[in-house]
Amino acid sequence: MRVVRTSSDLKEGLAPWRRAGERIGLVPTMGALHAGHMALVAAARGECRRVVATIFVNPKQFAPNEDLASYPRPEAADLEILQSAGVELAYLPTADEMYPPHFSTMVRVGGLSEGLCGAHRLGHFDGVATVVTKLLIQSLPDCAYFGEKDYQQLLVIRRLVRDLDLPIRIVGVPTVREPDGLALSSRNLYLSAQERRVAPELSRVLRDVATALEREPGAVRRETERGLAELTHAGFDVEYLEIRDAESLAPVRDLVTAAARVLAAVHLGRTRLIDNVPVASSPATARRG
Amino acid sequence: MRVVRTSSDLKEGLAPWRRAGERIGLVPTMGALHAGHMALVAAARGECRRVVATIFVNPKQFAPNEDLASYPRPEAADLEILQSAGVELAYLPTADEMYPPHFSTMVRVGGLSEGLCGAHRLGHFDGVATVVTKLLIQSLPDCAYFGEKDYQQLLVIRRLVRDLDLPIRIVGVPTVREPDGLALSSRNLYLSAQERRVAPELSRVLRDVATALEREPGAVRRETERGLAELTHAGFDVEYLEIRDAESLAPVRDLVTAAARVLAAVHLGRTRLIDNVPVASSPATARRG
Repeated sequence: MRVVRTSSDLKEGLAPWRRAGERIGLVPTMGALHAGHMALVAAARGECRRVVATIFVNPKQFAPNEDLASYPRPEAADLEILQSAGVELAYLPTADEMYPPHFSTMVRVGGLSEGLCGAHRLGHFDGVATVVTKLLIQSLPDCAYFGEKDYQQLLVIRRLVRDLDLPIRIVGVPTVREPDGLALSSRNLYLSAQERRVAPELSRVLRDVATALEREPGAVRRETERGLAELTHAGFDVEYLEIRDAESLAPVRDLVTAAARVLAAVHLGRTRLIDNVPVASSPATARRG
Repeated sequence: MRVVRTSSDLKEGLAPWRRAGERIGLVPTMGALHAGHMALVAAARGECRRVVATIFVNPKQFAPNEDLASYPRPEAADLEILQSAGVELAYLPTADEMYPPHFSTMVRVGGLSEGLCGAHRLGHFDGVATVVTKLLIQSLPDCAYFGEKDYQQLLVIRRLVRDLDLPIRIVGVPTVREPDGLALSSRNLYLSAQERRVAPELSRVLRDVATALEREPGAVRRETERGLAELTHAGFDVEYLEIRDAESLAPVRDLVTAAARVLAAVHLGRTRLIDNVPVASSPATARRG
């Protein structure tokens, strides 16, 4: 595996593959890799001849009060994981390489970025949209792989790729979970032993809400309230729990009539956790199948 | 000359040139073509084997109170002009092709977009940055050509191309003027005969200010005030007249110490005119040559 740290070295590494017409898959990450990232690499290897992974802890997507400084950066271990997973090119730019002096451009996706995590993490999705646009343009892969764990991010990225006409297919990969249901996240490392025992309640409550809505599509309000109460009872400080249209993220107010998603963000001690699960639309209620 | 109206037809038109490794030049315009646009095409032909021109009156760069509806659209005449100038591919997308339903992404260049025209045309440079990003990504030319007449726009575009890592060289082409000095502009069509006689005073005043500053680099304040007074006296309603650093557009407050630019926007009747001229930095004052 070749490790490069500048966009010109990245281009040079990609050039022979591109000349040969080989399909290239990109897996952008912030490092602190776990089995969720490996699922992205596996999905990329399944569709592409060559896989490039990036590790960049993007300062622009952290708000001033967030965990940029303490975000884990186990570079040597990450590189071993990527190599053993079959990644052939790893791109680890510095912050100066991505944002040199006088950098001043922002990519903003309206609408999709505004609610849910966007309402609580000011500027977060502008930072995500900007860095992903840069990584996509720098590498111009055929496909790029993102986890459904960050569901709102996935939709924001799909939108910007369509809107800016980037000739790249965005692939969403289902969330990888611990046996007890906890969604894998680099931030799970922050949890104390006691918090780790509580954490799986997040996915359990979301699944219960989704299951109830599949049986009773008109119970949106009741299930939202029940979910909120159960999360609070379990010990989470709840940022939001919402039922949203799975494509537009528009609020589902009364009745689940199309594919929907239950999404939540919570704090557990000093750790912020997010998760989401699909609400399968039943034949009786689905308008979009 | 082939005329295409969708980005997929554009890509198809470009593909054989790209495969053959031929250098491609892009000339983005809003139509209503004049000799200024032809200078862009000529510059492109001088450096590139193939020249693509686009005509798109971009609704996102007009504020609600501006002249979007009345902006001239002489399509047949424009196409003849492009063909006779040696353009081989003309791309004339519709607004729906560029901004389909649910479009919601914006590219914003901070700093450079904020003063001068940006302070008077709200959202204008966001619209410019967004459409130019789209046109550049759709066509991925080797070079793209923009006039110095829209000097702030040229710097905004250079900045976004650098910041987003677009592998495209942006070429600025000097302003083309009428014999009496008036900068060519599609909006000159709006001028009455009487206004047309007054209009060249704009460039005369800017040149006088620039010449005075070349002789006396410390006269920034005096020359700004003199220029403003002369424009007002000539009959213009002045939006701004400013002396700015030619690269950063930072205000030059006391002393011209590096390459600078005198920029102005005025209204003459119902027509808004802009112009700008360089202040050559003398060996005694230049820090950046």
